[in-house]
Amino acid sequence: MNYKMIAYLLGNILHIEGILLSVPVIVAFCYKEEFSATAFIASAVVCLIAGAILQSREPGDKRIYGREGFIVAALSWIVMSFFGAIPYYLTKSIPGFINCFFETVSGFTTTGATMLTEIEHLDNAVLFWRCFTHWIGGMGILVFMLAVMPLSDDRTMHLMKAEAPGPMVSKLVPRVKSTAKLLYIIYVVLTILEIILLYAGGMSFFDSVIHGISTAGTGGFSNKNASIAAYNSRYFEYIITIFMLLFSVNFNLYYLMVMRDFKNVWKNEELRTFFLIVVVATLLITTNIYDYYPTLEAAFRHAIFQVAAIMSTTGFVTANFDLWPEFSKTILFCLLFLGACAGSTAGGIKISRFIILIKMVVREIRHIVHPRSVNLIKLDGYKIDSEVTRSVASFIILYILILLGSFIVISLNGFDFATNMTAVTTCLSNVGPGLNMAGPTENLAFFSPFSKLVLCLDMLLGRLEIFPILMLFTPSIWKKGYM
Amino acid sequence: MNYKMIAYLLGNILHIEGILLSVPVIVAFCYKEEFSATAFIASAVVCLIAGAILQSREPGDKRIYGREGFIVAALSWIVMSFFGAIPYYLTKSIPGFINCFFETVSGFTTTGATMLTEIEHLDNAVLFWRCFTHWIGGMGILVFMLAVMPLSDDRTMHLMKAEAPGPMVSKLVPRVKSTAKLLYIIYVVLTILEIILLYAGGMSFFDSVIHGISTAGTGGFSNKNASIAAYNSRYFEYIITIFMLLFSVNFNLYYLMVMRDFKNVWKNEELRTFFLIVVVATLLITTNIYDYYPTLEAAFRHAIFQVAAIMSTTGFVTANFDLWPEFSKTILFCLLFLGACAGSTAGGIKISRFIILIKMVVREIRHIVHPRSVNLIKLDGYKIDSEVTRSVASFIILYILILLGSFIVISLNGFDFATNMTAVTTCLSNVGPGLNMAGPTENLAFFSPFSKLVLCLDMLLGRLEIFPILMLFTPSIWKKGYM
Repeated sequence: MNYKMIAYLLGNILHIEGILLSVPVIVAFCYKEEFSATAFIASAVVCLIAGAILQSREPGDKRIYGREGFIVAALSWIVMSFFGAIPYYLTKSIPGFINCFFETVSGFTTTGATMLTEIEHLDNAVLFWRCFTHWIGGMGILVFMLAVMPLSDDRTMHLMKAEAPGPMVSKLVPRVKSTAKLLYIIYVVLTILEIILLYAGGMSFFDSVIHGISTAGTGGFSNKNASIAAYNSRYFEYIITIFMLLFSVNFNLYYLMVMRDFKNVWKNEELRTFFLIVVVATLLITTNIYDYYPTLEAAFRHAIFQVAAIMSTTGFVTANFDLWPEFSKTILFCLLFLGACAGSTAGGIKISRFIILIKMVVREIRHIVHPRSVNLIKLDGYKIDSEVTRSVASFIILYILILLGSFIVISLNGFDFATNMTAVTTCLSNVGPGLNMAGPTENLAFFSPFSKLVLCLDMLLGRLEIFPILMLFTPSIWKKGYM
Repeated sequence: MNYKMIAYLLGNILHIEGILLSVPVIVAFCYKEEFSATAFIASAVVCLIAGAILQSREPGDKRIYGREGFIVAALSWIVMSFFGAIPYYLTKSIPGFINCFFETVSGFTTTGATMLTEIEHLDNAVLFWRCFTHWIGGMGILVFMLAVMPLSDDRTMHLMKAEAPGPMVSKLVPRVKSTAKLLYIIYVVLTILEIILLYAGGMSFFDSVIHGISTAGTGGFSNKNASIAAYNSRYFEYIITIFMLLFSVNFNLYYLMVMRDFKNVWKNEELRTFFLIVVVATLLITTNIYDYYPTLEAAFRHAIFQVAAIMSTTGFVTANFDLWPEFSKTILFCLLFLGACAGSTAGGIKISRFIILIKMVVREIRHIVHPRSVNLIKLDGYKIDSEVTRSVASFIILYILILLGSFIVISLNGFDFATNMTAVTTCLSNVGPGLNMAGPTENLAFFSPFSKLVLCLDMLLGRLEIFPILMLFTPSIWKKGYM
């Protein structure tokens, strides 16, 4: 294991975080929030110093392999969350460091589950930082590092692979650095577009930015207690619905669209399946909640908003769906697992994994019916390697084991079945709201500190898609002299 | 598809069921229940006539392949349940044919979920038939047919494979017929042993038989409303605990023990894992419910009884565990999925599948750490074929999809999250009790007829381990002229 290079890269991450922490300082100055400004400056300085300590010794060997990529990804996200929690603690916005840490993990992993009930009295700088963590975590901090830092292109693909969501990671262009830059350009353009559209509809500039970056990261933090419901505006609801769906799409497809390769966009099975599921779920829920709303339009609007919010794993709320009929709640619960497209900012198990799993099952049934036939699994017309199917199968098994394991541990708090089950699922899938006590109008502050740490672990496992975090707990990887 | 042979084998099954239906007639005569006697005689006659009609044309080609094995298994269990429901309907023991059908499916699949609240006023013949369906379903009707019917040994292995539980099915001895006979001999001996021990402890002969055959099939029907709690006897509780565990063990191991091959029994990973899980779960629950009971012994006794009842998928009850703390309930819920050993009478996903899944995950992690190493999956020292791991992975994916699909459909009734989730899980795993409204002291009669049919489908999918039932819904298998 190349420890020196791992420390060096972590130093890089902390430098970047130090710089990112100075963005809320600007917000604080704009709103004359001096106390917050000081807190964010102090946090930024701490980050930069810690980064400098980690980079005190330049590594001679800069090569990293798959396992180092995983370890760097896992440690980066933990370290980032730890340092990102400092401003909450210094500004006393959130009581207790574990709660601050939870809020930061929830931010970076784009979950959006919160420790707070009353947020509107908080400083704008703090509210901005909460949502900004979503934006940073959405596309990924390692991808950002690859885009901006002068790293050799050789083998940095391992870093991108470890952080990027989905069963297969491909480069848009031959160079990793250019791919990372392109991804961030698409991300920034879409975010600005949403901010403009919200602002044009009459939302204040600050609120537009808050909700723009929160949607972009598919996070779900808002600066309103009632989330999007606070505006009571059809226009905002539809705009945010559309952008939640747009940020659920594999960013590679936007690149293809820019390159005018519409044929391959249309051929994309994941995209078509994603929209099919959105349409079916929306129709079922609209029919089911029709009696609860004055017009069909209102029922449809709340249904598609909540479906998009859950599938994109954003977790914004326009209606307390915990009061909807059980059928709608159950559909939303099942969508909690699913998530959206690979290569997007959304969490969950991802539609492409779901498609591969279904195709594995179909192959098995075909094999029973025609024992001697050869059945390949194809996606978008390309053969899926058996290594990918094995990895997807292992992923789903681990997902369920982690879910049930966390469910057992969380149950020690003594809350009810639905609260525990949905709290764990929503954290593991990086969505945000669950049902009952973990419902859309609630927060998770009632859990014990130990349970909160378990939920933090679940959020990180979900965001990094399990394996990187698991590497940290694999003893053989830490053996001395091991390469 | 060899339709004639399928019809012929189904005819065989109905003949056997006709004969089995005459056993309750004897019970009815013993207890002078003339009305019931007439009902059972009529049901038996209907079975024999239907069987004769199906066998009216002797098939020229008696060969069956894997797919025919699956189809015969699926159809046998559906047909058996349909005809087995007739006595409930004729004796008016259960109102409505769907409820009668549910009770029979629940019986044959050894689930033990019931449509009845008050059972103690029912005729003894009916109570006996309920538990006898467990005993028949436990070891399997196809295995029984192979043991007693004069079928050629050629290819009948496909029938056994389709019905026997577990990821791999092996023959004890070279001939299928002898294997089937040996399995039934072990089954009968263990059942008689339990009946003797219960009777020796002071239980009435009828009750001893009822609970003996119900335990043997790991079913869970009793002739008492309060299940085993009705006796309030430590002796019965411990005896039944021991036998629930004994019937959870792969019957192949009993054969090895008779052959004095103790080395291979001890080497059996599934057995050791099973007992390890029983011990850990019992200790955790005992600690958790310690405050609820006057003595440590009582807490331990109820804990191990419930752990054995859930893992063996029997579902007997000595304590209303729905009132236990959430932690214990959550552990029991997770055990609902697991089940016991392959090749036993228990349901669930089976410990051996669980072990294979864990090993698949470990292999995947090893592969990330050492990309070039070759990692074989071994069980009991033998290499597991990639075909088996693929099949196990598909099984678990299907299990979850069926679980979530049924969960959505069942939620249309509007009952709560925990009721729906545990009702579906307990049916799919053939256990019996769930939580809340589906709890150990409740019954499932409140579900809509459609939901009851969905739960029946789940029970059959669980007992036959999904694939045979799924074959029925595979269009390509029914194509004309298809071989």
